[in-house]
Amino acid sequence: MSAAPIVPPTRVLAVASHVVSGNVGNKVAVFALQSLGCDVAALNTVQFSNHTAYRQWRGTKVSAAEIKDLYEGLKENYLDDFDMMLSGYVPGAEAVAAVGNIAHELKENHKDQPGKFFWVLDPVMGDNGRLYVAPEVVPEYKKLLQYADLILPNQFEAELLSDVKITDMASLTTAIRTLHETYKIPHVVITSISIPGVTEANHLCVVGSSMTSTGEPRLFQITFPAIDCYFCGTGDMFGALITCRIREAALAVPNLDARQSWLSDDNVSGEELPLAKAAEKVLASMHEVLTRTKNDMPASIEKTRAGMSEEDKNDEKKAHFVKTKAAELQLVRNLECLRSPGVQFTAKKL
Amino acid sequence: MSAAPIVPPTRVLAVASHVVSGNVGNKVAVFALQSLGCDVAALNTVQFSNHTAYRQWRGTKVSAAEIKDLYEGLKENYLDDFDMMLSGYVPGAEAVAAVGNIAHELKENHKDQPGKFFWVLDPVMGDNGRLYVAPEVVPEYKKLLQYADLILPNQFEAELLSDVKITDMASLTTAIRTLHETYKIPHVVITSISIPGVTEANHLCVVGSSMTSTGEPRLFQITFPAIDCYFCGTGDMFGALITCRIREAALAVPNLDARQSWLSDDNVSGEELPLAKAAEKVLASMHEVLTRTKNDMPASIEKTRAGMSEEDKNDEKKAHFVKTKAAELQLVRNLECLRSPGVQFTAKKL
Repeated sequence: MSAAPIVPPTRVLAVASHVVSGNVGNKVAVFALQSLGCDVAALNTVQFSNHTAYRQWRGTKVSAAEIKDLYEGLKENYLDDFDMMLSGYVPGAEAVAAVGNIAHELKENHKDQPGKFFWVLDPVMGDNGRLYVAPEVVPEYKKLLQYADLILPNQFEAELLSDVKITDMASLTTAIRTLHETYKIPHVVITSISIPGVTEANHLCVVGSSMTSTGEPRLFQITFPAIDCYFCGTGDMFGALITCRIREAALAVPNLDARQSWLSDDNVSGEELPLAKAAEKVLASMHEVLTRTKNDMPASIEKTRAGMSEEDKNDEKKAHFVKTKAAELQLVRNLECLRSPGVQFTAKKL
Repeated sequence: MSAAPIVPPTRVLAVASHVVSGNVGNKVAVFALQSLGCDVAALNTVQFSNHTAYRQWRGTKVSAAEIKDLYEGLKENYLDDFDMMLSGYVPGAEAVAAVGNIAHELKENHKDQPGKFFWVLDPVMGDNGRLYVAPEVVPEYKKLLQYADLILPNQFEAELLSDVKITDMASLTTAIRTLHETYKIPHVVITSISIPGVTEANHLCVVGSSMTSTGEPRLFQITFPAIDCYFCGTGDMFGALITCRIREAALAVPNLDARQSWLSDDNVSGEELPLAKAAEKVLASMHEVLTRTKNDMPASIEKTRAGMSEEDKNDEKKAHFVKTKAAELQLVRNLECLRSPGVQFTAKKL
């Protein structure tokens, strides 16, 4: 494995949750970005002992006022010179607005330097038809979308933002078209799509698009095998890796990084987009990390159970903790999967 | 560079400060430990925008109650199965006591399994004769020393803990002897020593010791060139790297990791100790990272100044921010310095 950074010096502001133990939010994003060579400023929106899929956790959320204050501190010390921003889970509508204001301000700072600042927004609101934030967070995200360069909703979040129910390829396309046209979002990737007729059996796919100069979608699809396990932090891992990989892919095209939102010429088709190239590498890294995590789960479960009393071993609630722990993404010991994944998934034009 | 982890699966609880931008505390420790392959649980004791050597910062400290609560959260989910703990800056005496209680409890959990848990304590209190914590923190640390396996005081902190004024090699030896004898601390490294007659000109040294079965010191010294620049986070980097490297070195000796505090046979002399071998690698990594950081400073200063107004450029206070930013440790783009440093500094018996 080469130790050379994947991208030239890149300063990223990563705004997401922090958990003491385990790998979700900034705990994933910071390491993934750093391992590819990015200088990461990590603004943590919560500090919890562990992620919420354990069903019990301790810790505190950071207020909107604290988020603003930390950003003021950065500005006062000339530490707001970010090339990119990645935002994930933010607790509550007021805090979402505070994060949006930061992105807006960073965008304004560079309004005369196209391509100098790029915001990757993961609008964390819910999954599988269930909202896990307050309802007032949804309109707050809609207000911010105009500042985003790339958004990464899952299927449910894409429905919430576009107000289009996604049931087939036609409605999926309509949703993406709406995000380009109504909200002027240059790049969209909808993650983890599972629609009968669109996705093969036992597979998932992502569908992405970078709009043309007239706001038309250029769609691509990447299909990959589903792994039968519930993992947390996969969205955060996707967001971190694509932040770095989209920069790598944009820099591979002469002068593209000096163009607003790194938008390709209109004659570039979906599967040839830098966004598609970036997503191919991201999904390869993720498939390798998830496969290795899954393979290690039985040993991890046994290791934890070895320290438990017989009574605890037979407690269903406690078995859930042990299984959830075993499903934590195994990132640090799989550095080469992040930096130079071996498998290949290829983007297809839609 | 090989991508293989430096140590077998190792779960480390890292307790220290968090800064959004820059590299001190857990921002250094987490990446350094992760890059060598450790699974790090990061309990952040503050969230500040930047480190305090900028002379202005924003953010909040975490209370002793929150530290306790986060640890309870870990326990409730079987996430307290740590192999090692590294603690750095902790705000206030009550919070120091809370962190000490965590280490004590983790030690107690493994009292029948010698060597199963190892606490590296960096007793952050001050430097160069100046205390930068409340005076009541000092006795609090003294109470905790009995649970530590390895402590990493600087020269001033070693004086505070041992109540021995260090002016020459004889008093340095007395201080270390006191820490072994009075506080039963198995391993000690005193970092960044600069004593006329002990250290060569333009050089610094560390002096370390692992006690014998009768509590006698076994001293070694490693000398390295001083770099003429004020860096922050070097103590945190030393702590993180030695946490991983002492485990690597202990595992290289058959069955040593199954012995209380990984203490070597009495016939092993100072310069042959695993602690000495570990410190050699740590100082090599640090020297490479600091050299590269220093070399990049002029370019970093110019880059920041390019975005400043003429008035700001001539403001002395603002020049300090810019210089402090340029002196932030450049870790992520120098991964190979952390994993496989090229230079060599050799431990000498004292």
